[in-house]
Parts: sequence; structure tokens; C-alpha cells
Amino acid sequence: MRKVYLDHSATTPVRREVAEKMWTYLTDKWGNPSSIHGVGREAKKGIEKAREKIAALLGAEAREIVFTGGGTEADNHAIIGTAAALGGRKGRHIITSSIEHHAVLDTCEYLEKDGFEVTYLPVTREGVVRIEDLKSALRKDTILVSIMHANNEVGTIQPVEDIGRICKERGILFHIDAVQSFGKIPVDVQDLNVDLLSISAHKIYGPKGIGCLYIRRGVKIDNFAHGGAQERGRRPGTENVAGIVGFAKAAELAVAEMETEAARQEKLRDKLIKGLQERLEDVELNGHPGHLRLCNNVNMSFKYVEGESLLLSLDMSGVAASSGSACSSGSLDPSHVLTAMGLPLEYALGSVRMTLGRDNTEEDVDYVLDVLPDIVKRLRNMSPFYKTQAMV
Amino acid sequence: MRKVYLDHSATTPVRREVAEKMWTYLTDKWGNPSSIHGVGREAKKGIEKAREKIAALLGAEAREIVFTGGGTEADNHAIIGTAAALGGRKGRHIITSSIEHHAVLDTCEYLEKDGFEVTYLPVTREGVVRIEDLKSALRKDTILVSIMHANNEVGTIQPVEDIGRICKERGILFHIDAVQSFGKIPVDVQDLNVDLLSISAHKIYGPKGIGCLYIRRGVKIDNFAHGGAQERGRRPGTENVAGIVGFAKAAELAVAEMETEAARQEKLRDKLIKGLQERLEDVELNGHPGHLRLCNNVNMSFKYVEGESLLLSLDMSGVAASSGSACSSGSLDPSHVLTAMGLPLEYALGSVRMTLGRDNTEEDVDYVLDVLPDIVKRLRNMSPFYKTQAMV
Repeated sequence: MRKVYLDHSATTPVRREVAEKMWTYLTDKWGNPSSIHGVGREAKKGIEKAREKIAALLGAEAREIVFTGGGTEADNHAIIGTAAALGGRKGRHIITSSIEHHAVLDTCEYLEKDGFEVTYLPVTREGVVRIEDLKSALRKDTILVSIMHANNEVGTIQPVEDIGRICKERGILFHIDAVQSFGKIPVDVQDLNVDLLSISAHKIYGPKGIGCLYIRRGVKIDNFAHGGAQERGRRPGTENVAGIVGFAKAAELAVAEMETEAARQEKLRDKLIKGLQERLEDVELNGHPGHLRLCNNVNMSFKYVEGESLLLSLDMSGVAASSGSACSSGSLDPSHVLTAMGLPLEYALGSVRMTLGRDNTEEDVDYVLDVLPDIVKRLRNMSPFYKTQAMV
Repeated sequence: MRKVYLDHSATTPVRREVAEKMWTYLTDKWGNPSSIHGVGREAKKGIEKAREKIAALLGAEAREIVFTGGGTEADNHAIIGTAAALGGRKGRHIITSSIEHHAVLDTCEYLEKDGFEVTYLPVTREGVVRIEDLKSALRKDTILVSIMHANNEVGTIQPVEDIGRICKERGILFHIDAVQSFGKIPVDVQDLNVDLLSISAHKIYGPKGIGCLYIRRGVKIDNFAHGGAQERGRRPGTENVAGIVGFAKAAELAVAEMETEAARQEKLRDKLIKGLQERLEDVELNGHPGHLRLCNNVNMSFKYVEGESLLLSLDMSGVAASSGSACSSGSLDPSHVLTAMGLPLEYALGSVRMTLGRDNTEEDVDYVLDVLPDIVKRLRNMSPFYKTQAMV
């Protein structure tokens, strides 16, 4: 049976070049970067070169990059760090959107219990934050705006440049969760006018357990943990050296191939969307239909079908997809993203996310177009709702 | 030139078996454990088997193990999580010792700024916490006692069983930083009467960037970060799968070899200590001289010698050692551990830590006994203090 992995927004296979780089730092250059002897200095050199590489790819300075245990930690650090630094002085109001990743949403909810006020901006039917909504939400005591660059479920790209400009004008810190966008569209911290930006290695063919937070020079946020002097005291603890060098290698390769890969995946994406729309009725494309959609994202709803059943059947046919965020899989609630976009429940519950990657081919898409419609038809025939509807 | 690595308490080389296990999970079983499809389930199986393995080695249940980004994060989580959970209800007093790792000390200092009171217990000249001191420090509002199992600089083993029993009697949570002891002496959470216990992979020939926190069932501490449902919500974010399986493999091997390795290293340790004492005057062994010393720790002070100079000379002779904790290397202050033990400044500044590992041989020790005394003599001859003293 053909195996087609279409869950690249959940995680990606580690590239051979990345794994080999990591192997070197696991078995040969395994020193503690804080040690002053030769064994330690080799490891230190590795992480500092990695830091420079990632900084350059983001248009940042090396000293503005703090390596973290992943994207979730970076988001937590950015938001809680800002709240701790400014909550007592400047204000206790935060603005985010209703379609953020749970790493941002849950952190904001945690702060609400601690006396902070959070405005969750609505989004359009396509999943886009409106600039007018942001403007009218801004207050004198707003200390932070946190908006994702591209949504993890529907792939909608947000107007972060505009948001960044507005925040800059008002002197409000701006955080971007760029976990899904980095390596797919340009991410330059100068162009985006951003103060804090999170990225993660395992979404770009790097290892799990490593990410980074960009902190613009001059921005004072509290440290997330306490201990040694690593990462300038911002993230104490012995550095994940192999993870860091693997992350930098993955980032370098992702950005180098970005343009050609994005164009190639976009074609596959559109073929898949169009093919399913042609083959099935009562199908809805979720997210933006045009230029504000990530090159690799297909999120579709199949009315009268239960998403989890569809996923299980796809899995049995060798196709790995998801119902939305991997971080909240297992939950039977409809996606908070689709709900915020105003999708009716019967569509939201029948949604499937298929996210392409560099390993996918045209044959993979043909295979999915071959098996998925039949599965949907079979499931619909088992659904009492579908039959009722058909009889009307 | 012979290369002798004597800094195993800073970090250890990753064992081949561990790196190979990680390779499998980087290049083959690279799925997201939260994904419900087959690729994800393979990864999930890996981390759950690893959790069971580590739990069994600690005498714990699998569900009591939370994987973290390392020992420092585990310590932060244990202490801040307890403070957040109990600070508003039970009390705001914490007891720790003056010779803890900075991951504990700095976290306690952070809490002091937040209105918590912390008692830093003194230690004996050998670096041992006295039970009487602990008893008289206990208060009605004490919520946590955090004492390390074995000290990272001088290797002194603390009376944690007794401390655990006292805490249990009084219903006070007890946290142990077991980062240095695990894999060298038995660590069983039942024997130790401990509620929270931190360990780290990279001290036991596993990868950097991964550790765990044991949280006894029923102990309610706040989560350290917010987001997905991973690690039962305690540590959200996609799991470091390769790191986790590598950690479990390293732990399994370390415990299996513990008895024979400890006996072997103890002999090398004693030969090194005795050899240096025989070859040099004005030498002090720091820490406990007998059974309360880790099998691999040699910490000695060479009067009239500046520790950093000694380390650089040793490095040039192929010997990698350290002046204390790697996490605070680069600092010119004397070690807080040696100071707390009452070591005079002229000794504290001339201290060197040499920590043995499974790769060290008798020839390594012979080599150090060959080069180190000459370096000390040369440095002493350059020291004005030594000459003054010699002339008196």
C-alpha cells in the first residue's frame, strides 16, 4: 500500500543532513558549552555558529536569539515574560486572536486568572484578523499584541506587517508565533516590525524539542526560568547542543529551498483542492482561497462525515492526515479555529487538514484523489443525517 | 598527547547505544506522538515505553514522570509549581541548603522577590546538611524542602532519607535534585520519601536538553507552561521524542552498570586523591573524605594557585577538568559551595574539580598524577604569595 504523509504541519521527518549534523554533536563534539576546556569550547562554537545562522535568516542579530525547548516554550516565554516585566508598571491588557495556537491561548487564559485582561480578536470567514478590530481593541494599558503569522489549522496568513507597524507607532510590544510560516514564507523581523517571534525546528525537518525566541535588542522581558548563565541567563540549563545545530541546519536548508518548494507545493495543494471539489458534493474549503493561504495547507470540510472516522479510514489506506492541531487531537470538540471562523458545526466536525511537504509528489495527490472520495461516500452512506437529507 | 576527560559532572559523552536509539527516532519513527495516525502512534509508543522504563528505575509509576527540557527546568517546575499551588493557601516558607545548584538557589531567590521566605541551611565543613538545622528551620508555613541528593561540586551525599522522613511526618513536600546522584547511587522515590525529584539525561551518557521531574501521585503542583495536552498538560509542546528514548536507554544502562562502575571509579578516585596528596604540599580535599562522597568526585584545593590558571594548563596538557559547576564557569567569584563549607578564600580560589567517568582508566589517573603536580609547582613559583610564604 502506498504511504502518503500529509501531516507536515504536525511534524516533519528529520532531514538526513540534519540528523547527520546532530550525530556529530552527539558522538564527537559532545562537550558542555559552558566548560572552558577544549571539549566544551567545541560545543560552544557549534551553538554560537547556529545562533548566527538562524539570526541571519531572520534578519536579526545573534544576541537576539534565545534557544528554547520548542515553540510552545517560546510562546510562553514571550507572553508571560512580557506580562511579568510590564504588568506591574505599564498595564495589564493583552490582545491576541481567537484562532491562535493553544500555546498562546492557554497562556493568555492563565494570565487572565492572574488579573490580566485579554481581548481575543474575531476573524473573518477566511480566518483573517481585521486591522479595524485590532485598532479599536488597543488601549492605553495594552502591553502586548500576540498574533500568529500563519494559522496552523487552515494556513491563513495574517496581516502581521500592518499589525507590527501599528504596534510600533503606539509603543506596544508585538509577538508573532511564526512556527508555521517560517520556511514557507519570508520571515524577517525588520519587515515585520516585531519585538518577539517564536519558531520551532520540528516543523522544518529539524528535531523535536528545540526552538527559539527572537527578542529584539532593548526589549526587557522577564526570564522564564532561573539558574545558570546559559542563553544570557534567559534560558538557563545545559544547552541542547545537538538539537541547536540540527535546528540551524534545517533552517538554512528550508530557507534556501523556500521559493522553489513553495511553488511546487502550491501546485500540488491546488490540484488536491480542485480534485476533491470536483469529485465530491457538500465540500467546503476552510481558510483563505487565494494568496493568503500557506503553500502546503489543505483544510476541507465534508458535510455528513465525522472527521475522526475519515482520518481513521485514511490511515488504513496509508494516508496520514489530521483533524486540525496535533496538540489538541483526541478532543471531540470542534476546532476553535473553525468555530471562530463561523463554520457551521456540521461542517466543523467533518473537517480534515492535509498538509503537504517536500517529500510529497504528484502521485501522492493522485492517490489521495483516488481513495478519499470513496471513503467519504462510504461514510456518508452510513450517516443517518445524510440519508435524511437525501430523502428530502 | 593523551586526552583525559575528567569533567563528567559537567556532561558526559553520549553512549553509542543511546545515539543509535536516537537515530532511529530521528530518521524513522519521527512522527508527532499526538497524531492519531500510524506515524504518530509509533512515536507515542516510543515515549511511553521510555516513561515506563525510567519510572521503574526510580521505583515510580509511569504517570508520575514528566519529561522536561533538562534538570534546570525540572528544578524550576518543582519549586515554582509548588509555590504557585500552595503559596496562597498553606504558606510561603521554603527551606533549601546553601550548597544547592543555581537552578534551585536562583529559583528560590526569584520567589523571595515575590514575597516568599527562604531558609538556606548551612552545611558542615564536609558539605553535609545537619538534620538538627533542618528541624529547627521547619515552620508551620513551610510548604517545601528542596535538598540535593549529591552535590555537583564536591560530591557530598546528603541525608535525604532522613529529611524525607521528617518532611513526610509533617506533611511538607520534599524535592530532591538527583541530577548528580542518579546512575551513581541508588535513587528510589519510595526509599527517599520524596514527592518531587529531578534528573537529567546528559549526566548519564544521554543527550542534552532532556530530563524529567518525578511528581508523586496526588501531589498537586501548578504546570510550568501552558498549551497542549502533552505530558498530561504539565509540560505542553511536542515531545522531544528522540531525546526521551535516548534518555531512557542511557538510564537503563547506567543503572545496570552502576554497582561495578561505582566500585571501579571509586578506586580510581582514591588513587588520584592519594597520589596528589603524596606529591604536593598545601593540598586540601574538599567534601566528605569517606562514604558520603560520590564515586567519581575529586575536588581539591591547591593553596597559592589560581584555579582558572591551573585548569588552562591542564587543558593544554590534554586534561579537561573544571573549577566547579560548569553552569557558573567564567565567574571569578569563589564557589558558593566551598564558601558555605567554610573553606578559606585562598583555598577556595585554587580549587579544581575532577570527575571520573566510565571511559577513564588507571592510565588516565597515572597521566594526571604525572602532569598536575608539575603544573602546580610551576604556578606556585610564579605566585608572589607563595614566595612570601616560602621566605617566612
